[in-house]
Amino acid sequence: MNLDKFFKAKSIAIIGVSKNPNKVGHVIFRNLLDGHYAGRIYIINPNADRILNYKVNKTILEIKEQVDVAVCCVPAELSLKVIEQCGKKGIKHVVMVTAGFSEVGDTKTEEKLVRLLDKYKIKIIGPNCLGTLDVHTKLDTLFIPRYRMKRPKPGSISFACQSGAVASTILDLAATEGYGFAKVVSYGNALNVDESDLLEYLGEDEETKVICFYIEGIKNGRKFIDIAKKVTQKKPVIVVKGGITSEGSKAALSHTASLAGDVEIYKGMFKQTGIIHCESLEEMFNAARILEKSVGPKGNKVQIITNGGGYGIVTTDAVINNRLIMAEMDKKVVAELKKNFPPIVIVSNPMDLVGDATTERYNIAIKAALEDKNVDIIIVVALLQTPLITPDIIDIISEYDELRMKPIVCVSTGGDFVMTLRRSLEDNGVPCFTFPEEAVRAVKHLVEYYVK
Amino acid sequence: MNLDKFFKAKSIAIIGVSKNPNKVGHVIFRNLLDGHYAGRIYIINPNADRILNYKVNKTILEIKEQVDVAVCCVPAELSLKVIEQCGKKGIKHVVMVTAGFSEVGDTKTEEKLVRLLDKYKIKIIGPNCLGTLDVHTKLDTLFIPRYRMKRPKPGSISFACQSGAVASTILDLAATEGYGFAKVVSYGNALNVDESDLLEYLGEDEETKVICFYIEGIKNGRKFIDIAKKVTQKKPVIVVKGGITSEGSKAALSHTASLAGDVEIYKGMFKQTGIIHCESLEEMFNAARILEKSVGPKGNKVQIITNGGGYGIVTTDAVINNRLIMAEMDKKVVAELKKNFPPIVIVSNPMDLVGDATTERYNIAIKAALEDKNVDIIIVVALLQTPLITPDIIDIISEYDELRMKPIVCVSTGGDFVMTLRRSLEDNGVPCFTFPEEAVRAVKHLVEYYVK
Repeated sequence: MNLDKFFKAKSIAIIGVSKNPNKVGHVIFRNLLDGHYAGRIYIINPNADRILNYKVNKTILEIKEQVDVAVCCVPAELSLKVIEQCGKKGIKHVVMVTAGFSEVGDTKTEEKLVRLLDKYKIKIIGPNCLGTLDVHTKLDTLFIPRYRMKRPKPGSISFACQSGAVASTILDLAATEGYGFAKVVSYGNALNVDESDLLEYLGEDEETKVICFYIEGIKNGRKFIDIAKKVTQKKPVIVVKGGITSEGSKAALSHTASLAGDVEIYKGMFKQTGIIHCESLEEMFNAARILEKSVGPKGNKVQIITNGGGYGIVTTDAVINNRLIMAEMDKKVVAELKKNFPPIVIVSNPMDLVGDATTERYNIAIKAALEDKNVDIIIVVALLQTPLITPDIIDIISEYDELRMKPIVCVSTGGDFVMTLRRSLEDNGVPCFTFPEEAVRAVKHLVEYYVK
Repeated sequence: MNLDKFFKAKSIAIIGVSKNPNKVGHVIFRNLLDGHYAGRIYIINPNADRILNYKVNKTILEIKEQVDVAVCCVPAELSLKVIEQCGKKGIKHVVMVTAGFSEVGDTKTEEKLVRLLDKYKIKIIGPNCLGTLDVHTKLDTLFIPRYRMKRPKPGSISFACQSGAVASTILDLAATEGYGFAKVVSYGNALNVDESDLLEYLGEDEETKVICFYIEGIKNGRKFIDIAKKVTQKKPVIVVKGGITSEGSKAALSHTASLAGDVEIYKGMFKQTGIIHCESLEEMFNAARILEKSVGPKGNKVQIITNGGGYGIVTTDAVINNRLIMAEMDKKVVAELKKNFPPIVIVSNPMDLVGDATTERYNIAIKAALEDKNVDIIIVVALLQTPLITPDIIDIISEYDELRMKPIVCVSTGGDFVMTLRRSLEDNGVPCFTFPEEAVRAVKHLVEYYVK
């Protein structure tokens, strides 16, 4: 399903813009202005003349020009009338943030809404959703103020999310941590644009390299499976399934009226289609970052390079617990390394460059691991607090990473000093993590996707 | 074993202070000065007169006054001579950061060192360690510069760590995230002050409310078990075991010469002694924060209050997966709440106050859960990005938390705006988490400790 208009609309009408700056319609209007959306914006309110010095239209029908997308922010009881007007105006794409339909038991109004959408051939995102965001075109219908929720920088992770709260908070976190996104859509009750349609669209989308999904239920299992099988051949699809327990599943029913279904059926489906299943939101975005940035590994043999013995051990434990393999470097390479290093360095796996490691020791060790055929993936645990590490370690790791020979993943735990260096590494395209366990788990998903 | 001197020494000598600001002895000296340690500081270097405008002594024997603790930073080959001199000077407490003993295969020098320590009745932290930190007295022998590694604020978590790298990076992270610590000790090869002695001491220490341990091996299992059984009756002890896999265990052998031992034996020991075993460093400090701050729960029944449906579901899944119980509030309370809330609110568990939730809705919901006998623990998922939440939600949650009736735990995911509010909540004593899964896992450990 082509959903380009929802992300690349050249004109947008917001129906239900109050003068009250806390109300949803007003917030969306402000966000489009403040976010420098380049298209035309129309606002609708039967009881106001001007808002933020913009002309207000009484109804959508008053607007002479073409409107690509209408954002409906009126209460549920007015929504049918508004959709009728949108239909008459010839609008084919509506984002409906309004809540109060099947998710609170009102299936009747929802059925009427579906009939109207059919009649006028309108595609709808929602209702009961947070809206959409295209980070590249700046088309932003998310109803959270920009000062409360930052928007992420442009990138190539796209996120389709059945929960508005999950979408907004994750984006806010990602923006603060400096991760980039392409398209985001909170699709709520999914009346005629469902998770399968979004998956198909994002699968075709050239700006999207990795697709993340938070789903509570799937409307049409067959359709989803068919599309997923194709899309996962082209790019990774990562899913967190809300309502994976029977208690969570009950809660999903009142949230988005989703029949969350049997856990084992879902797990089977993920396996069958090549979807990467994550247990938590944190795990999903760690996986997304590594899949967005890293070259695919040829195998599952991991070499650990560290300047902290304890971190080497903890990382080793994580490698084994995630059923990856500890690489064994070529004997000649090991002998050569031993010549270059002081005797205190442990040339093994983990390779412990010890606490007085210099940047140059890392340089030598990473180069050797990159060139050794027995190593598929390199995890560099760089504890940047130690006195002899110079900031040019960032350039060295980044340059090796740019060769795109093998995935290089960094672990650095710490405060402001470490985070400043780590952010440069991230900006240079090296995925970085705070704890060994989360890094290894992300590596596991990378291997899962690339190594069959 | 009374180890007070290591943390409350009134005078300290650093043996091996170079003029080079990158060298270990110099860094420790600078840290004591910059950290405003109130005791007397002596520095030793046979080849210098003044360093940082301080008088330098040729040897420890030149010093007339009493020295409570000596920090030994000379290379391994000089260490025996230095200890001999410390013995003659009558120093009974030494922190030895020097590496290059049994952990690199030199057991002979280490044996000689042990004999010297016996002869002069010297207690030693190390060798091959990072040092010690008392956040209250500011006695700080950690050899990482303060600009690279922040020191945490005073608090009541103490941390004994067999790995210097793990200790330093976790402290740095904790300092940045605003968590408080009491005492920290990286004990390395543990020649005559081992993990059991530290456990016993921290168990008696009044400034310590929660004890965290990173261990690779235990020297004397029987002694550790006996002490652990007593200490866990008084305060929670949390352990991460490095080398829990056989590959990790091999790495532990080259790191601190620890025989890491069989996994199942360790797990059995943790269970038998009431030690809380965590799988990762992240999990340990999440557990420590909640155990430090929260009142003990009476049972394991959790009530979730949220303004985001998806978060309610994900949190429910986590509650079930961690084998906690979803609370069922009293029917009368539910009926009363329904009267007070608009119909869109889902008064259940999770209680979904929905996206237009006000601070007052949270107020009503938390109060009801606090007073309902069917609820033992309250998880408040507050997505602070939504427009109608006002910052005074911080005061409301904090005031309920201060009643010390039930544990209240907060989940807030997001960026700068959220983090600013969240830090106030933390400062007021409410443990806060980014993701539902980590919050619930921490709650599980709280229940594990208090509910038998």
